[in-house]
Amino acid sequence: MKLTSAPTLDDIQAAHELIRPYIEYTPLLQSSQLNNISGSKLFFKCENFQKAGAFKSRGATHALLQLDKNQLKNGVVTHSSGNHAQALARAAAILGHKAYIIMPENAPSVKVAAVKEYGGLITFCKPTLQAREETTESIVKQTGATVVHPYNDYDIIAGQATACLEMLKQGPLPDYILCPVGGGGLLSGTLLSAHYQSPHTKVIACEPEGANDTWKSIKTGSLVPSINPQTIADGLLTSLGSLTYPIIKQYVNEVITVSDEAIIHAMRLVWERMKIIIEPSSAVPVAVALSAPEFLKNKTVGIIISGGNIDLTKIPWL
Amino acid sequence: MKLTSAPTLDDIQAAHELIRPYIEYTPLLQSSQLNNISGSKLFFKCENFQKAGAFKSRGATHALLQLDKNQLKNGVVTHSSGNHAQALARAAAILGHKAYIIMPENAPSVKVAAVKEYGGLITFCKPTLQAREETTESIVKQTGATVVHPYNDYDIIAGQATACLEMLKQGPLPDYILCPVGGGGLLSGTLLSAHYQSPHTKVIACEPEGANDTWKSIKTGSLVPSINPQTIADGLLTSLGSLTYPIIKQYVNEVITVSDEAIIHAMRLVWERMKIIIEPSSAVPVAVALSAPEFLKNKTVGIIISGGNIDLTKIPWL
Repeated sequence: MKLTSAPTLDDIQAAHELIRPYIEYTPLLQSSQLNNISGSKLFFKCENFQKAGAFKSRGATHALLQLDKNQLKNGVVTHSSGNHAQALARAAAILGHKAYIIMPENAPSVKVAAVKEYGGLITFCKPTLQAREETTESIVKQTGATVVHPYNDYDIIAGQATACLEMLKQGPLPDYILCPVGGGGLLSGTLLSAHYQSPHTKVIACEPEGANDTWKSIKTGSLVPSINPQTIADGLLTSLGSLTYPIIKQYVNEVITVSDEAIIHAMRLVWERMKIIIEPSSAVPVAVALSAPEFLKNKTVGIIISGGNIDLTKIPWL
Repeated sequence: MKLTSAPTLDDIQAAHELIRPYIEYTPLLQSSQLNNISGSKLFFKCENFQKAGAFKSRGATHALLQLDKNQLKNGVVTHSSGNHAQALARAAAILGHKAYIIMPENAPSVKVAAVKEYGGLITFCKPTLQAREETTESIVKQTGATVVHPYNDYDIIAGQATACLEMLKQGPLPDYILCPVGGGGLLSGTLLSAHYQSPHTKVIACEPEGANDTWKSIKTGSLVPSINPQTIADGLLTSLGSLTYPIIKQYVNEVITVSDEAIIHAMRLVWERMKIIIEPSSAVPVAVALSAPEFLKNKTVGIIISGGNIDLTKIPWL
């Protein structure tokens, strides 16, 4: 049954049990080279190795498992050009449901191909929020499908929270956790898991300068949406939601923003030294660690690597 | 003390004990997506996560640990533009010795930088085998350093053999092992470990079409060196040596060659689906698995991923 309030520890643990058969228990990696460069002891929770290439599989799978037969009989629908689309298409395919995916007509062909590969039923629309919402509404009317929002949903948040839950079991209870923030599903889940399981851990939201709605929202104390955000971190363009913002406001220690230049530098360093593929959004917390703020020196720092989906014909430093 | 004949199981196990404090026990990864594409059950021994980015750290570290004080007091020297140079420089630095590295003057700047970062003392020479050998000789005369050959050395072979030794402990005893071959250090070590620990396993040498000296040597029954080899797999340009060839001749099941096109396709697929960085040489056995020979279907197959060192400004499919 769908959650109707912020997930408790029991909710998150139940979510983890539910989704375990369908997701990866991703590794927690270390790198002596990145420790040397940053001056911190870094632990990387590698959701780039997650099914469908990103943490989004956790939330999408959990959301589907919480819906009842009646809600599922006509399938599910979402609008996304990113990792949530792939994750929902994959989860629906595995659980035997239809997934309608609304994508902007200018979505990268590699992402369209990935959604198709997982059996997602794609409808293209104009690349505006209005067109996406109208098209979603029209698909709901035509098919009776149930909408699964990418982040503004407590079941999604509980699912994303399981990445941090695993991380805290695999490694030390860190002094800090660095987590990227877009719509806030991963961040709010991370904040809840850290609050329940390691209350001394300070969680820092890491955001691109060009999409700094979280920074503005926390600074002003009220939800400020992004207007025309511009960043290489294409997974972090969305604004916080009405359900994620209050959790973030309550528990986040700080919001730190980084430039696209720093994001690209951090991404390349991880590829070069750790030999793993991370997408620009994942490099945002790495860039924060490398910016070497004094308070992170010699501390244990958990970094959530959110995903590894990138068009390999568009390498940002080339 | 240096080994003077092909390593026994005891030699390889002793090598593993000796080098353990200095190297990574690298993970054995699986990929359901690559299993689906290949039709085999693949296990990837990920030496791209090895120290200095390649299996070469195993052999170089072992070779240094086998030399006595007298042999080490003036440092060690090798000529290499590749992973052996980095591995030897790193191992020497860790063990407190000098490493003289002869590199061709046209060596990629990224490889020069890596050797320098590990403290290697670089001498540049003309990019011919003759110049490399003459420069090495002259450095030996000037410094009294001891030469550490990249592959034609039983201590190097015993070191490289530990990658397969680990793989056979981590996963099932596979039906097949696919191993890349250049000078044959990794392949001969793999053949010995497989022969001792899993005699039913068939080991297949995987070689680029444009550097097929192993294929020719096995076909003709005598050591045929490469003449002007051309391949994207820059770690596999060298010819078999007088010590590696007899081991390969005795134990290898088959040599399979693949085109550069197939190598690049395999490399890109591993980056895209497994989210790990592998170098072209590592993609050679993956290309063999993907070429889907009938005898590999539904079999368990160990693949040695030899390294992950690549110039990230020169992506071969761009």
